Amino acid sequence: MRHVDSACPLCQHDGGRLLWRDAVLRVIAADEADYPGLIRVVWQAHVPEWSDLTGAQRAHFSGILLRVEQTMRDHMQPDKINLASLGNVVPHLHWHVIPRFQDDPHFPQPIWAQKQRAWTSLRQQVVLERADAFEQALRLALNQGATEMQ
Amino acid sequence: MRHVDSACPLCQHDGGRLLWRDAVLRVIAADEADYPGLIRVVWQAHVPEWSDLTGAQRAHFSGILLRVEQTMRDHMQPDKINLASLGNVVPHLHWHVIPRFQDDPHFPQPIWAQKQRAWTSLRQQVVLERADAFEQALRLALNQGATEMQ
Repeated sequence: MRHVDSACPLCQHDGGRLLWRDAVLRVIAADEADYPGLIRVVWQAHVPEWSDLTGAQRAHFSGILLRVEQTMRDHMQPDKINLASLGNVVPHLHWHVIPRFQDDPHFPQPIWAQKQRAWTSLRQQVVLERADAFEQALRLALNQGATEMQ
Repeated sequence: MRHVDSACPLCQHDGGRLLWRDAVLRVIAADEADYPGLIRVVWQAHVPEWSDLTGAQRAHFSGILLRVEQTMRDHMQPDKINLASLGNVVPHLHWHVIPRFQDDPHFPQPIWAQKQRAWTSLRQQVVLERADAFEQALRLALNQGATEMQ
Protein backbone atom coordinates (compact mmCIF):
# COMPACT_ATOMS: atom_id res chain seq x y z
CA MET A 1 0.00 0.00 0.00
CA ARG A 2 1.38 3.39 -0.97
CA HIS A 3 1.13 6.16 1.58
CA VAL A 4 -2.02 8.28 1.15
CA ASP A 5 -2.87 11.46 3.07
CA SER A 6 -6.62 11.95 3.35
CA ALA A 7 -6.17 15.75 3.61
CA CYS A 8 -3.94 16.06 0.53
CA PRO A 9 -5.57 17.21 -2.73
CA LEU A 10 -2.99 15.34 -4.83
CA CYS A 11 -3.82 12.13 -2.96
CA GLN A 12 -7.54 12.69 -3.49
CA HIS A 13 -7.61 14.04 -7.07
CA ASP A 14 -5.46 13.90 -10.20
CA GLY A 15 -4.78 17.64 -9.93
CA GLY A 16 -5.54 18.38 -13.59
CA ARG A 17 -6.38 16.54 -16.79
CA LEU A 18 -4.74 13.12 -16.79
CA LEU A 19 -2.59 12.50 -19.88
CA TRP A 20 -0.73 9.39 -18.81
CA ARG A 21 0.08 7.34 -15.74
CA ASP A 22 2.03 4.33 -14.68
CA ALA A 23 2.20 2.53 -11.33
CA VAL A 24 4.20 5.26 -9.58
CA LEU A 25 3.50 8.62 -11.24
CA ARG A 26 1.07 10.53 -13.43
CA VAL A 27 1.39 13.22 -16.10
CA ILE A 28 -1.19 16.01 -15.91
CA ALA A 29 -2.15 18.84 -18.24
CA ALA A 30 -2.63 21.77 -15.86
CA ASP A 31 -4.93 23.69 -18.27
CA GLU A 32 -3.92 27.05 -16.84
CA ALA A 33 -5.39 29.73 -19.10
CA ASP A 34 -2.14 31.72 -19.43
CA TYR A 35 0.08 28.65 -19.84
CA PRO A 36 -1.15 26.17 -22.44
CA GLY A 37 1.12 23.13 -22.40
CA LEU A 38 2.08 23.45 -18.73
CA ILE A 39 2.60 19.91 -17.44
CA ARG A 40 2.72 18.58 -13.90
CA VAL A 41 4.29 15.23 -13.15
CA VAL A 42 2.95 13.94 -9.86
CA TRP A 43 4.34 11.10 -7.77
CA GLN A 44 1.48 8.82 -6.79
CA ALA A 45 2.52 8.23 -3.18
CA HIS A 46 2.39 11.05 -0.66
CA VAL A 47 6.04 11.98 -0.13
CA PRO A 48 7.13 15.61 0.19
CA GLU A 49 10.69 15.79 -1.13
CA TRP A 50 12.76 14.67 -4.11
CA SER A 51 15.29 13.18 -1.68
CA ASP A 52 12.55 11.01 -0.15
CA LEU A 53 12.61 8.83 -3.27
CA THR A 54 15.03 5.97 -3.77
CA GLY A 55 17.68 6.34 -6.46
CA ALA A 56 15.74 4.03 -8.77
CA GLN A 57 12.54 6.03 -8.22
CA ARG A 58 14.33 9.31 -8.95
CA ALA A 59 15.89 7.83 -12.10
CA HIS A 60 12.45 6.76 -13.35
CA PHE A 61 10.89 10.14 -12.48
CA SER A 62 13.82 11.99 -14.13
CA GLY A 63 13.41 9.94 -17.28
CA ILE A 64 9.75 10.96 -17.54
CA LEU A 65 10.58 14.64 -16.87
CA LEU A 66 13.20 14.53 -19.58
CA ARG A 67 10.76 13.02 -22.04
CA VAL A 68 8.22 15.75 -21.21
CA GLU A 69 10.85 18.47 -21.64
CA GLN A 70 12.15 17.09 -24.94
CA THR A 71 8.69 16.64 -26.42
CA MET A 72 7.71 20.12 -25.19
CA ARG A 73 10.76 21.64 -26.87
CA ASP A 74 10.03 19.84 -30.13
CA HIS A 75 6.35 20.69 -30.32
CA MET A 76 5.87 23.96 -28.43
CA GLN A 77 9.15 25.59 -29.49
CA PRO A 78 9.35 27.66 -26.29
CA ASP A 79 12.03 30.28 -25.69
CA LYS A 80 12.84 28.58 -22.37
CA ILE A 81 11.74 25.64 -20.26
CA ASN A 82 11.15 26.14 -16.54
CA LEU A 83 11.37 23.15 -14.19
CA ALA A 84 10.28 23.39 -10.58
CA SER A 85 9.42 21.23 -7.60
CA LEU A 86 7.98 23.54 -4.92
CA GLY A 87 5.11 21.99 -2.96
CA ASN A 88 4.81 24.63 -0.26
CA VAL A 89 1.01 24.63 -0.47
CA VAL A 90 0.65 20.93 -1.28
CA PRO A 91 3.68 19.04 0.08
CA HIS A 92 3.16 16.06 -2.21
CA LEU A 93 6.02 15.62 -4.68
CA HIS A 94 5.19 17.08 -8.09
CA TRP A 95 7.20 18.80 -10.81
CA HIS A 96 6.09 21.67 -13.02
CA VAL A 97 7.39 21.65 -16.61
CA ILE A 98 6.54 25.04 -18.06
CA PRO A 99 7.00 26.26 -21.64
CA ARG A 100 7.99 29.93 -21.56
CA PHE A 101 7.79 32.49 -24.35
CA GLN A 102 9.24 35.97 -24.49
CA ASP A 103 5.74 37.42 -24.93
CA ASP A 104 4.01 35.26 -22.32
CA PRO A 105 2.23 36.99 -19.40
CA HIS A 106 5.19 36.87 -16.96
CA PHE A 107 8.36 36.61 -19.06
CA PRO A 108 11.16 36.92 -18.00
CA GLN A 109 9.82 36.58 -14.47
CA PRO A 110 8.78 33.21 -13.03
CA ILE A 111 5.08 32.47 -13.59
CA TRP A 112 4.46 33.01 -9.87
CA ALA A 113 5.67 36.62 -9.98
CA GLN A 114 3.59 39.65 -10.89
CA LYS A 115 1.95 39.52 -14.30
CA GLN A 116 3.70 41.72 -16.88
CA ARG A 117 1.21 41.67 -19.75
CA ALA A 118 -1.61 39.72 -21.40
CA TRP A 119 -1.12 37.44 -24.39
CA THR A 120 -2.19 38.89 -27.67
CA SER A 121 -5.12 36.80 -28.89
CA LEU A 122 -3.20 35.83 -32.03
CA ARG A 123 -0.19 34.53 -30.11
CA GLN A 124 -2.34 32.78 -27.51
CA GLN A 125 -4.09 30.95 -30.35
CA VAL A 126 -0.73 29.86 -31.79
CA VAL A 127 0.44 28.56 -28.42
CA LEU A 128 -2.88 26.75 -27.81
CA GLU A 129 -2.56 24.98 -31.14
CA ARG A 130 1.01 23.96 -30.37
CA ALA A 131 -0.16 22.68 -26.98
CA ASP A 132 -2.71 20.41 -28.68
CA ALA A 133 -0.03 18.92 -30.94
CA PHE A 134 2.34 18.63 -27.98
CA GLU A 135 -0.17 16.69 -25.90
CA GLN A 136 -0.76 14.18 -28.65
CA ALA A 137 2.97 13.74 -29.18
CA LEU A 138 3.55 13.45 -25.44
CA ARG A 139 1.05 10.61 -25.01
CA LEU A 140 2.75 8.77 -27.86
CA ALA A 141 6.23 9.43 -26.46
CA LEU A 142 5.26 8.25 -22.98
CA ASN A 143 3.55 5.13 -24.33
CA GLN A 144 6.56 4.38 -26.51
CA GLY A 145 8.85 4.85 -23.51
CA ALA A 146 6.73 2.49 -21.43
CA THR A 147 6.94 -0.15 -24.16
CA GLU A 148 10.71 0.25 -24.37
CA MET A 149 11.02 -0.22 -20.62
CA GLN A 150 9.10 -3.51 -20.63
CA MET B 1 36.99 24.21 -24.85
CA ARG B 2 33.63 24.62 -23.18
CA HIS B 3 31.14 27.00 -24.74
CA VAL B 4 31.34 30.51 -23.26
CA ASP B 5 28.99 33.42 -24.01
CA SER B 6 30.69 36.78 -23.57
CA ALA B 7 27.36 38.48 -22.78
CA CYS B 8 26.29 35.95 -20.12
CA PRO B 9 26.82 36.93 -16.45
CA LEU B 10 27.15 33.26 -15.42
CA CYS B 11 29.91 32.78 -17.99
CA GLN B 12 31.71 35.90 -16.75
CA HIS B 13 31.23 35.62 -12.96
CA ASP B 14 30.57 32.92 -10.37
CA GLY B 15 27.12 34.41 -9.64
CA GLY B 16 27.53 34.35 -5.86
CA ARG B 17 29.98 33.14 -3.24
CA LEU B 18 31.78 30.04 -4.50
CA LEU B 19 31.51 27.09 -2.09
CA TRP B 20 32.77 24.29 -4.30
CA ARG B 21 33.48 23.46 -7.90
CA ASP B 22 34.61 20.64 -10.09
CA ALA B 23 35.44 20.53 -13.79
CA VAL B 24 31.83 20.84 -14.95
CA LEU B 25 29.79 22.67 -12.31
CA ARG B 26 29.99 24.99 -9.32
CA VAL B 27 28.05 25.37 -6.06
CA ILE B 28 27.28 28.96 -5.03
CA ALA B 29 25.92 30.52 -1.85
CA ALA B 30 23.49 33.12 -3.16
CA ASP B 31 23.64 35.26 0.03
CA GLU B 32 20.15 36.63 -0.50
CA ALA B 33 19.19 38.53 2.64
CA ASP B 34 15.79 36.88 3.03
CA TYR B 35 17.03 33.39 2.17
CA PRO B 36 20.12 32.30 4.08
CA GLY B 37 21.24 28.91 2.82
CA LEU B 38 19.87 29.38 -0.69
CA ILE B 39 22.20 27.49 -3.04
CA ARG B 40 22.65 27.73 -6.77
CA VAL B 41 24.32 24.94 -8.70
CA VAL B 42 25.62 26.30 -11.99
CA TRP B 43 26.78 24.30 -15.00
CA GLN B 44 30.12 25.71 -16.16
CA ALA B 45 29.43 25.62 -19.89
CA HIS B 46 26.86 27.92 -21.42
CA VAL B 47 23.91 25.63 -22.20
CA PRO B 48 20.32 26.74 -21.62
CA GLU B 49 18.32 23.60 -20.88
CA TRP B 50 18.49 20.48 -18.71
CA SER B 51 17.84 18.39 -21.83
CA ASP B 52 20.93 19.91 -23.49
CA LEU B 53 23.14 17.81 -21.19
CA THR B 54 24.11 14.22 -21.92
CA GLY B 55 22.71 11.50 -19.67
CA ALA B 56 26.04 11.20 -17.86
CA GLN B 57 26.19 14.96 -17.31
CA ARG B 58 22.64 15.03 -15.93
CA ALA B 59 23.41 12.09 -13.64
CA HIS B 60 26.44 13.92 -12.24
CA PHE B 61 24.50 17.19 -11.83
CA SER B 62 21.59 15.33 -10.20
CA GLY B 63 23.94 13.68 -7.73
CA ILE B 64 25.28 17.07 -6.65
CA LEU B 65 21.74 18.50 -6.34
CA LEU B 66 20.74 15.55 -4.22
CA ARG B 67 23.73 16.01 -1.95
CA VAL B 68 22.88 19.71 -1.56
CA GLU B 69 19.26 18.89 -0.76
CA GLN B 70 20.10 16.17 1.76
CA THR B 71 22.69 18.29 3.55
CA MET B 72 20.27 21.24 3.56
CA ARG B 73 17.55 19.09 5.12
CA ASP B 74 19.92 17.80 7.78
CA HIS B 75 21.39 21.14 8.78
CA MET B 76 18.75 23.77 8.02
CA GLN B 77 15.72 21.68 8.98
CA PRO B 78 13.46 23.51 6.55
CA ASP B 79 9.72 22.91 6.33
CA LYS B 80 10.09 22.37 2.58
CA ILE B 81 12.76 22.30 -0.11
CA ASN B 82 12.13 24.13 -3.39
CA LEU B 83 14.04 23.08 -6.51
CA ALA B 84 13.91 25.14 -9.69
CA SER B 85 15.69 25.57 -12.99
CA LEU B 86 14.26 28.70 -14.63
CA GLY B 87 16.87 30.77 -16.48
CA ASN B 88 14.49 33.18 -18.22
CA VAL B 89 16.71 36.16 -17.44
CA VAL B 90 20.02 34.28 -17.71
CA PRO B 91 19.59 31.28 -20.00
CA HIS B 92 22.63 29.46 -18.62
CA LEU B 93 21.70 26.22 -16.86
CA HIS B 94 21.53 26.67 -13.09
CA TRP B 95 19.41 25.17 -10.34
CA HIS B 96 18.10 26.90 -7.23
CA VAL B 97 17.91 24.79 -4.06
CA ILE B 98 15.91 26.81 -1.56
CA PRO B 99 15.20 26.04 2.10
CA ARG B 100 11.68 27.19 2.95
CA PHE B 101 10.17 27.85 6.37
CA GLN B 102 6.56 28.47 7.30
CA ASP B 103 7.49 31.89 8.68
CA ASP B 104 9.83 32.93 5.84
CA PRO B 105 9.01 36.10 3.85
CA HIS B 106 7.03 34.38 1.07
CA PHE B 107 5.74 31.08 2.47
CA PRO B 108 3.69 29.30 1.14
CA GLN B 109 4.20 31.24 -2.08
CA PRO B 110 7.29 30.75 -4.25
CA ILE B 111 10.09 33.18 -3.36
CA TRP B 112 9.46 35.04 -6.63
CA ALA B 113 5.87 35.91 -5.65
CA GLN B 114 4.77 38.89 -3.58
CA LYS B 115 6.36 39.14 -0.15
CA GLN B 116 3.98 38.12 2.65
CA ARG B 117 5.91 39.28 5.75
CA ALA B 118 9.34 40.03 7.15
CA TRP B 119 11.35 37.57 9.22
CA THR B 120 11.29 38.23 12.94
CA SER B 121 14.86 39.12 13.93
CA LEU B 122 15.00 36.16 16.31
CA ARG B 123 14.03 33.65 13.65
CA GLN B 124 16.26 35.22 11.02
CA GLN B 125 19.17 34.81 13.41
CA VAL B 126 18.34 31.13 13.94
CA VAL B 127 18.20 30.53 10.18
CA LEU B 128 21.47 32.42 9.60
CA GLU B 129 23.22 30.25 12.18
CA ARG B 130 21.86 27.10 10.60
CA ALA B 131 23.03 28.36 7.20
CA ASP B 132 26.59 28.71 8.54
CA ALA B 133 26.59 25.14 9.83
CA PHE B 134 24.99 23.96 6.59
CA GLU B 135 27.69 25.57 4.44
CA GLN B 136 30.46 23.92 6.40
CA ALA B 137 28.74 20.55 6.20
CA LEU B 138 28.06 21.02 2.49
CA ARG B 139 31.72 21.66 1.65
CA LEU B 140 32.63 18.50 3.53
CA ALA B 141 29.89 16.47 1.87
CA LEU B 142 30.87 17.65 -1.61
CA ASN B 143 34.57 16.99 -1.00
CA GLN B 144 33.75 13.56 0.38
CA GLY B 145 31.58 12.85 -2.65
CA ALA B 146 34.38 13.94 -4.99
CA THR B 147 36.81 11.57 -3.22
CA GLU B 148 34.33 8.71 -3.48
CA MET B 149 33.97 9.34 -7.21
CA GLN B 150 37.73 9.12 -7.84
